[in-house]
Amino acid sequence: MRAEIVSVGTELLLGQIVDSNAAWLGAELADCGIHHLRRQTVGDNLPRLIEALELAVSRAEVVITIGGLGPTEDDLTRDGIAAVLGETLEIDSEIERHLERLFRERGFPFQESQRRQAMRPASARPLANPNGTAPGLLAEKDGRVLIALPGPPNELKRMFTHEVRPWLTERSGNAISSRILRVIGIGEAALEKEIIDLIHSPDPTVAPYAKLGEVHLRLTTTGPKETLDQMEAAIRDRLGSAVYATGSTSLEDHLIDLLRGREWRVATAESCTGGAVAQRLTSVSGASDVFAAGWVTYQWEGKTRELGVPRDLLEVHGAISPECAAAMAEGALTRSNANIAVSVTGVAGPGAVMENGVEKPAGMVLIGVATATGTTTERLKLIGDRGTVQARAAQSALAALRTKLLAGT
Amino acid sequence: MRAEIVSVGTELLLGQIVDSNAAWLGAELADCGIHHLRRQTVGDNLPRLIEALELAVSRAEVVITIGGLGPTEDDLTRDGIAAVLGETLEIDSEIERHLERLFRERGFPFQESQRRQAMRPASARPLANPNGTAPGLLAEKDGRVLIALPGPPNELKRMFTHEVRPWLTERSGNAISSRILRVIGIGEAALEKEIIDLIHSPDPTVAPYAKLGEVHLRLTTTGPKETLDQMEAAIRDRLGSAVYATGSTSLEDHLIDLLRGREWRVATAESCTGGAVAQRLTSVSGASDVFAAGWVTYQWEGKTRELGVPRDLLEVHGAISPECAAAMAEGALTRSNANIAVSVTGVAGPGAVMENGVEKPAGMVLIGVATATGTTTERLKLIGDRGTVQARAAQSALAALRTKLLAGT
Repeated sequence: MRAEIVSVGTELLLGQIVDSNAAWLGAELADCGIHHLRRQTVGDNLPRLIEALELAVSRAEVVITIGGLGPTEDDLTRDGIAAVLGETLEIDSEIERHLERLFRERGFPFQESQRRQAMRPASARPLANPNGTAPGLLAEKDGRVLIALPGPPNELKRMFTHEVRPWLTERSGNAISSRILRVIGIGEAALEKEIIDLIHSPDPTVAPYAKLGEVHLRLTTTGPKETLDQMEAAIRDRLGSAVYATGSTSLEDHLIDLLRGREWRVATAESCTGGAVAQRLTSVSGASDVFAAGWVTYQWEGKTRELGVPRDLLEVHGAISPECAAAMAEGALTRSNANIAVSVTGVAGPGAVMENGVEKPAGMVLIGVATATGTTTERLKLIGDRGTVQARAAQSALAALRTKLLAGT
Repeated sequence: MRAEIVSVGTELLLGQIVDSNAAWLGAELADCGIHHLRRQTVGDNLPRLIEALELAVSRAEVVITIGGLGPTEDDLTRDGIAAVLGETLEIDSEIERHLERLFRERGFPFQESQRRQAMRPASARPLANPNGTAPGLLAEKDGRVLIALPGPPNELKRMFTHEVRPWLTERSGNAISSRILRVIGIGEAALEKEIIDLIHSPDPTVAPYAKLGEVHLRLTTTGPKETLDQMEAAIRDRLGSAVYATGSTSLEDHLIDLLRGREWRVATAESCTGGAVAQRLTSVSGASDVFAAGWVTYQWEGKTRELGVPRDLLEVHGAISPECAAAMAEGALTRSNANIAVSVTGVAGPGAVMENGVEKPAGMVLIGVATATGTTTERLKLIGDRGTVQARAAQSALAALRTKLLAGT
């Protein structure tokens, strides 16, 4: 069964709101095993809405509209659906009484314009909207189904979950399962080369998506869930510990889990990332159990005073050096009750930095990780503007933290 | 001039990512005075991509694709554009050399598949991508323009802003001017009430957009720029210093400017925001001149050891208290060479926290700002999930920093 979403609203085209409804609904359709192959977005304009609906009906068995069901003049979805059905809009007196009662109960005057929300094409059935006023619509014609959902996310989600999803699941009679594997420490192209035979597998399908400093693999099957388990095992067999998590577990979630598992606490010492590493770790609920302390030392003085980086080290090597990264991590470890500390120093850019007569280019980043048994450092050359270098540097620091945690010393 | 966006990517249809790129680009097109009437979204499937492009070209002068320019086999946008142009893909040896050099510099092997990113239809010109590897494309055919932008937001935004927008603005010949006024410290509804007569002005139009902890007013005119100056003056007259900046100047940009103007340095002491305040300030290029130091003290111990918050203060009032916020700010001021320090402590959530037998609810946040002449504190009740509370708390801390900087003591 194929579905097509038609999102309705000029504010979507003008970028005043992001269409998170369509993403949510897309995930639901995938979960129901319905093929969602295309989406259209149109403004509050009747001819273009009708054109979009007719195109959708010509190529999908299920067409779902989002938005345009409100009481104002630019809410045109009801009119569009009536036109495609070849019907006119009629007042549904039951909905009308329901709306009048709703407004009376809330103490609001029942505006004449609200009556628009009680209209429907004769052959469409209304869908209950306990979170709002406008009911949805479900109509069938020539083997096609047209479904209209309201725009407010809490109304849409409730209506789809309770009124539409059970109906669709029964109609489609199939089940798709999918799973995300999250991979770190290997680029998208290298990863693809490593598992190209698996990527060419017809079922489960395996699709890579590049993210900032990691790659996500999406496994999808129409078969039993065990085929996903087998494919996951095959991929883990190739990639080993590069697969750090599945599903929606982020790198910072995973690190907090690793730290908690070891009963370790972490400290951060940041220069060019300016707090981004600490911010990512503490974004996880429960981070307070394992986050010991963080420093943002942007200048030589702070590095020396707060973290004990020797002044003569800075005068010889500069702050943008593996020596300084090591000393920052060691200082953070010593000065907190942490078991592991990670440091970042470098040039976020846009320009290069001169230190002790040596030019350090934008994107030059040093990472240090210290534990009781020793310190490792890493030198990176990152590309991008200031924000990108900072984000990539923070990701690299978290990746280095993971490597050391997995090494177990 | 009409434009149509074609977003490419199965992950968009499956709802694995929200299409925030399309919203951003829609707002940019509106800002250029280009009519954006329809958007299509298709998966990584060449026949459906070509179908979407051909439909778009049939009804819009400018067609912009987002995504599908990476190195993997399911990156098909180049192929789709070539098909619509009736051309084949050829290696651009200049891009190829550039990519090889980029990989060499980063110390990564140049995978054969990366070479796909150096391919283009003969008549298309490449668009520079300093934030990534894949160049964009711009091609013209029969009075239509096809533009391909990469999917990663930092790459897309930079490429559109620097390579596409100037070209489009000149092409469209639209004399629309617009300006954003950035307002802080007054909610959207209160702001709207304050300037409702100006919002009803036919030209320039004034449209409010609620952002996290601030409101942006977009002024747009088809007349001379002076009408924008007059409207800006009228709004500033009503709102006074609540208008903190115009255009793309962020609150952190503005604060770095204020600090530089006063030759002051700032320190941060964060608990529940976990480094987000420092991260925002240091995201600004040149922040190193005015950012003295930052601490992330998540636990009592760190607050006492690093910032000198008295242990008995914590035992009486707890860490989630105005007393602690004040002591953190004062500690950060004393222990750095800063002239002003801002602190945040509170409960990010999701759950409440018990301190000394007192329940502190999620969203309870205290802000402190200290200078040589005194310390102010502020108590907030923020709503939302953990991430939202952290982001709102960081925004409030920056707003409090501004208030103190403007007060001038």
